Amino acid sequence: MLTNPRSDRVRAVRALSRRSVRSRTGEFLAEGPQSVREAVRFAPEHVRDVYVTPDGAERHPEIVEAARVARLFVHEVTPEVLDAMCDAEHPQGLVAVCRWAEPAFDAALAALPPDAVVCVLTNVRDPGNAGTVIRGADAAGADLVVVSDSSVDVRSPKVVRSTVGSLWHLPVVTGVPIPALLEGLRARGVRLLAADGAGETLLPDVDLTGAHAWVMGNEAWGLEAAVRDACDEVVRVPIHGHAESLNLAMAATLCLYASAGARGAAR
Amino acid sequence: MLTNPRSDRVRAVRALSRRSVRSRTGEFLAEGPQSVREAVRFAPEHVRDVYVTPDGAERHPEIVEAARVARLFVHEVTPEVLDAMCDAEHPQGLVAVCRWAEPAFDAALAALPPDAVVCVLTNVRDPGNAGTVIRGADAAGADLVVVSDSSVDVRSPKVVRSTVGSLWHLPVVTGVPIPALLEGLRARGVRLLAADGAGETLLPDVDLTGAHAWVMGNEAWGLEAAVRDACDEVVRVPIHGHAESLNLAMAATLCLYASAGARGAAR
Repeated sequence: MLTNPRSDRVRAVRALSRRSVRSRTGEFLAEGPQSVREAVRFAPEHVRDVYVTPDGAERHPEIVEAARVARLFVHEVTPEVLDAMCDAEHPQGLVAVCRWAEPAFDAALAALPPDAVVCVLTNVRDPGNAGTVIRGADAAGADLVVVSDSSVDVRSPKVVRSTVGSLWHLPVVTGVPIPALLEGLRARGVRLLAADGAGETLLPDVDLTGAHAWVMGNEAWGLEAAVRDACDEVVRVPIHGHAESLNLAMAATLCLYASAGARGAAR
Repeated sequence: MLTNPRSDRVRAVRALSRRSVRSRTGEFLAEGPQSVREAVRFAPEHVRDVYVTPDGAERHPEIVEAARVARLFVHEVTPEVLDAMCDAEHPQGLVAVCRWAEPAFDAALAALPPDAVVCVLTNVRDPGNAGTVIRGADAAGADLVVVSDSSVDVRSPKVVRSTVGSLWHLPVVTGVPIPALLEGLRARGVRLLAADGAGETLLPDVDLTGAHAWVMGNEAWGLEAAVRDACDEVVRVPIHGHAESLNLAMAATLCLYASAGARGAAR
């Protein structure tokens, strides 16, 4: 049982709340039972350590058992140690230190099916929106999420929490410069659909057969003009009432579910 | 120019962050340019006072002008006074004190069109989710939002902010006990569709012609069994990937947009 909240190990885990430390170590935090369970289930080879309080172990025996079966290091800690490790206010008794692992962009492109649905985040800065889009992409069955180098770090604790485990469910490629990202997708035959409130094509009217990518912009100011112009089509979600817009996560989820519907009909 | 952040007036405005004070006075706060603009445009008769800093007036002259045209009281205040009035960390130079006004539930039901789309919130406690659902209902062109008495106060500053003005765009009836709410809708011929991850009918398969209401449950534990059983159909949004669920606001927005699509096709 680890009992000292001021130990070097605890400090090292807590330091993963900082981007610079995540970059240097290649590690990040999964906080809370949902994130830890999905990391252990879907990517045990990338989990370095699991920390659990006695209460957490009692409430989630299946997670501890799955971690042991996967031969992971499971450490018992006091609630004070867990709190000292975490960014979250209520880690609910469980946290895992994970290794940063993602496919290379080229490999991820090569693995796409012919009717691929891709979600692209450019200049997304808000952690909650970014995480919720990744969760929506997972739920809609998207094949790949690509995050530009100008976006929020998807391994930050807030983003990881908002994905509610989806970060481990589908390939997420990060750090790609926007031009390389658009070019790579295009070269692979993926049609680029810019999601933009000023789009001429309405979402229900767009052709969603074949491989395509939804290109999303910043949560406040939308897509850069250069990005919009580089896309094959600019599509807007219709606004039927008086709302000025939808938030990024809602718009992305509606677009990705439209793709899922079209793919379901075609298959 | 109001300059004293400790004056009685400033304290009285600030007190509207508390639910008990809102209930007693029948007033609530609209913070920031988007909320104030929509309140002034859509419900000037319910705006009691507008407070604006010199900087806010310079950045949003059209809002101040619209408020003056509507013969509202517009008060210049210092940034310190505005900060002292607000719950928001960055009110961006504008706040309005609004009067609580909503149609009676019976009147709102009587005003529904034959192909009405209604959004019902039962036991929703999270302000961000509640506000985002109202924003989504507005964008999807819903005719009415009904909020049960067991839900969050939609006039709390956090909910008002998350609606981004939509609170003034469509009728929102609050404080209705759940049984009365379901009975009232049913008596008006509105079909009750429970949105629930355990539903047997998939969203793309449900018949969305005719008047219907989407009944949403708590953001963490979903719909009460009694509420689900009282509905005509239990519908789930399909999950194509490995995500366990969608958040409440995303699920509600997908359901409401499906209704909008069906209505568009029928009209």
